[in-house]
Amino acid sequence: MADKQKLSTDAYKGVRDFYPEDKAVLEYIFDVWKHTAESFGYEQYDASILEPAELYSAKTSEEMVNEQTYTFIDRGERRVTLRPEMTPTVARMVAGRRHDLSFPLRWYSIPNLFRYERSQRGRLREHWQLNCDIFGSNEYSADVEIIALAHQIFLNFGADESMFEIRINDRSWLHEIFGTYGLNDAQTKAMLALLDRKEKIDNFDEEAEKICGKPFGISNIKPAEDSSLTRVMNGLTELGVKNVILSPSTVRGLTYYTGTVFEVFDTAPENSRALLGGGRYDNLTELFGGEPIPGVGFGFGDVTFKNFLETHNLLTSNVTAPTLMIIPTDPEHILVAEKLAQNFRANEISTAVDLSDRKVGKKVAHAGDTFVTYALVLGEDEIASKKYTVKNLAEKTETSGTLEELLEKLSN
Amino acid sequence: MADKQKLSTDAYKGVRDFYPEDKAVLEYIFDVWKHTAESFGYEQYDASILEPAELYSAKTSEEMVNEQTYTFIDRGERRVTLRPEMTPTVARMVAGRRHDLSFPLRWYSIPNLFRYERSQRGRLREHWQLNCDIFGSNEYSADVEIIALAHQIFLNFGADESMFEIRINDRSWLHEIFGTYGLNDAQTKAMLALLDRKEKIDNFDEEAEKICGKPFGISNIKPAEDSSLTRVMNGLTELGVKNVILSPSTVRGLTYYTGTVFEVFDTAPENSRALLGGGRYDNLTELFGGEPIPGVGFGFGDVTFKNFLETHNLLTSNVTAPTLMIIPTDPEHILVAEKLAQNFRANEISTAVDLSDRKVGKKVAHAGDTFVTYALVLGEDEIASKKYTVKNLAEKTETSGTLEELLEKLSN
Repeated sequence: MADKQKLSTDAYKGVRDFYPEDKAVLEYIFDVWKHTAESFGYEQYDASILEPAELYSAKTSEEMVNEQTYTFIDRGERRVTLRPEMTPTVARMVAGRRHDLSFPLRWYSIPNLFRYERSQRGRLREHWQLNCDIFGSNEYSADVEIIALAHQIFLNFGADESMFEIRINDRSWLHEIFGTYGLNDAQTKAMLALLDRKEKIDNFDEEAEKICGKPFGISNIKPAEDSSLTRVMNGLTELGVKNVILSPSTVRGLTYYTGTVFEVFDTAPENSRALLGGGRYDNLTELFGGEPIPGVGFGFGDVTFKNFLETHNLLTSNVTAPTLMIIPTDPEHILVAEKLAQNFRANEISTAVDLSDRKVGKKVAHAGDTFVTYALVLGEDEIASKKYTVKNLAEKTETSGTLEELLEKLSN
Repeated sequence: MADKQKLSTDAYKGVRDFYPEDKAVLEYIFDVWKHTAESFGYEQYDASILEPAELYSAKTSEEMVNEQTYTFIDRGERRVTLRPEMTPTVARMVAGRRHDLSFPLRWYSIPNLFRYERSQRGRLREHWQLNCDIFGSNEYSADVEIIALAHQIFLNFGADESMFEIRINDRSWLHEIFGTYGLNDAQTKAMLALLDRKEKIDNFDEEAEKICGKPFGISNIKPAEDSSLTRVMNGLTELGVKNVILSPSTVRGLTYYTGTVFEVFDTAPENSRALLGGGRYDNLTELFGGEPIPGVGFGFGDVTFKNFLETHNLLTSNVTAPTLMIIPTDPEHILVAEKLAQNFRANEISTAVDLSDRKVGKKVAHAGDTFVTYALVLGEDEIASKKYTVKNLAEKTETSGTLEELLEKLSN
């Protein structure tokens, strides 16, 4: 080759390679997400990771778009962003077909998301996130359902309620409280930002007093019995969801939430970041014109969730090793082996042919090491007699017979 | 809201939104791809769409990287590219763990790929592509297997051999032929580029003569009996793959192929673009240092393939409507309905609760229109008696009973 300069085998900074053992874990997570969302009747949608940058500028500060997203100018002078979250995209899609869609909608997606973070403290620039949303329902029971769905996902991974905690609040209730303090828009915004940082700072009371002009107390306030927040919490109790706590400092950083907001945390102290977050956003589609379509939903990322599963010994994976490995004693027999393999594959028995130049004994041992269930050694005798022996590698048993006999045995 | 300027609901130029009905088609395609690859014992891997731009510069011209890919400079002054193909990525990953991986490998992935194409003739800037590769085998039977896998995928979608055609060639054989004409490197490159355009131009013979300095004939040449190309073709015959033709003008545009090259075409004249393409690339990992690891594989895109399936009436989709819709007669009953739904979901019957404000009759009709199998209307009587009636919406039959009785009936 002309160019002998060595290229690095490293992935781009802040993103991940998924070797088969890593992909098997990701696929396991995706499968349970998908299965649970579909068990609630949610339909899957998707979109490109590329979005016009304007989609984020309207509801997010220009500074955030420029500094925390991958945004660049294309050759048609369009500003394009690698989506940092899915909600603006799904709001765009729902608004785009508002006249054809039959509301309420239950939709889910598992998008790949990108954030450009300057700091390098182990946060990834890319992750995958389950998004579940209900569009077109003002019912508080839609909020209850979306939180119950989040809860059920944890249970379906084998978690119990001692392992995670659902923190719930309501933006409209906070606004009511701010109203009693007579706060203006700027003060309201400052208070929301301060509440968002409450757990991370020591001087919350002091800072809150500076903003409000008088001491601000929130810990002991309870929402009214007929408030949406109380009804949502009672609804969750009715559905048997017990690990819910009222959390007046939960506001969610993003600006589009209008009602219920919630986050799920690991109860193990080593995972301090939210596993999942969401809420009600009733005005987001207004950006696209027309009457607003109410929405409620959540986003659930793979990175912190994998930590949760590891911490609680719940992590498993979808390994995709073939069921049967056919091992030719000589490279000359590879195509005969491939021909034989076709029969097993046609009977739903996934089958590979060993192409390595290992010795036969090593081939059999290697199949066992790589989670293959059965091995079939194919030599002159087997080819001549059309009788084969299949070894169960874990159980160390074997069975012999014609192809038809083996197909029947292995299919059971 | 402060900002009343209307945002467009259009997707970014050249990419696609997947509404549930579109996503159901894509999921159907992905499922058959995944199932077939795994039936041959291929393991799934994945990587980020972001790659260092250098990965493409080495084997592709700088001009192509700049003009046909999404490449930009990040804030760390790194040039980053949205991957236009998966082979450089998988070669990087394989080279990166060459000492830990157990060869030969059978790997597959379904990546999202991006190309920045200036022309706007209906070509998309984004697509999804199945990639299947074998690494670490020099056996010609690996080439046979990878083509047989491609062939099997078509069969698993319900296609028969009259619908598609596998065109096969060998770069090393072409180089032999060029050798007999005494062509130098520049002439060889020009001839490969010319062959790649053969089907699109009228004056191939004239142009070829210009390059070679004498008439160039390729149509009647046959590869030697003991050549790799002949053995691969005979191997395919042995495996029952009949729709293979020798195609001396198939070269594949990309520069890294070293041996077998192949493309699959729709036999219907309206789809003139290759559905699938691949080949053997024995030196690609050399870019990363160390001894080269041989590879053979293909890429199979979703866009042209969907056209193929439509043309031959083979297109179906994985619709994800819930099995059961519980229809409360009053919004007050929604949570009771959700509670009831939990029981069905726990028995693997996907269940949604109707949240709409339609009348009950319309709700039942709507469930049927959206491919729901069963409807259960939940009113005061049902709640009081704990006896429910389930309607089969397609068969127009109904069955009544307690929850336990219905769970048993619906689970069968």
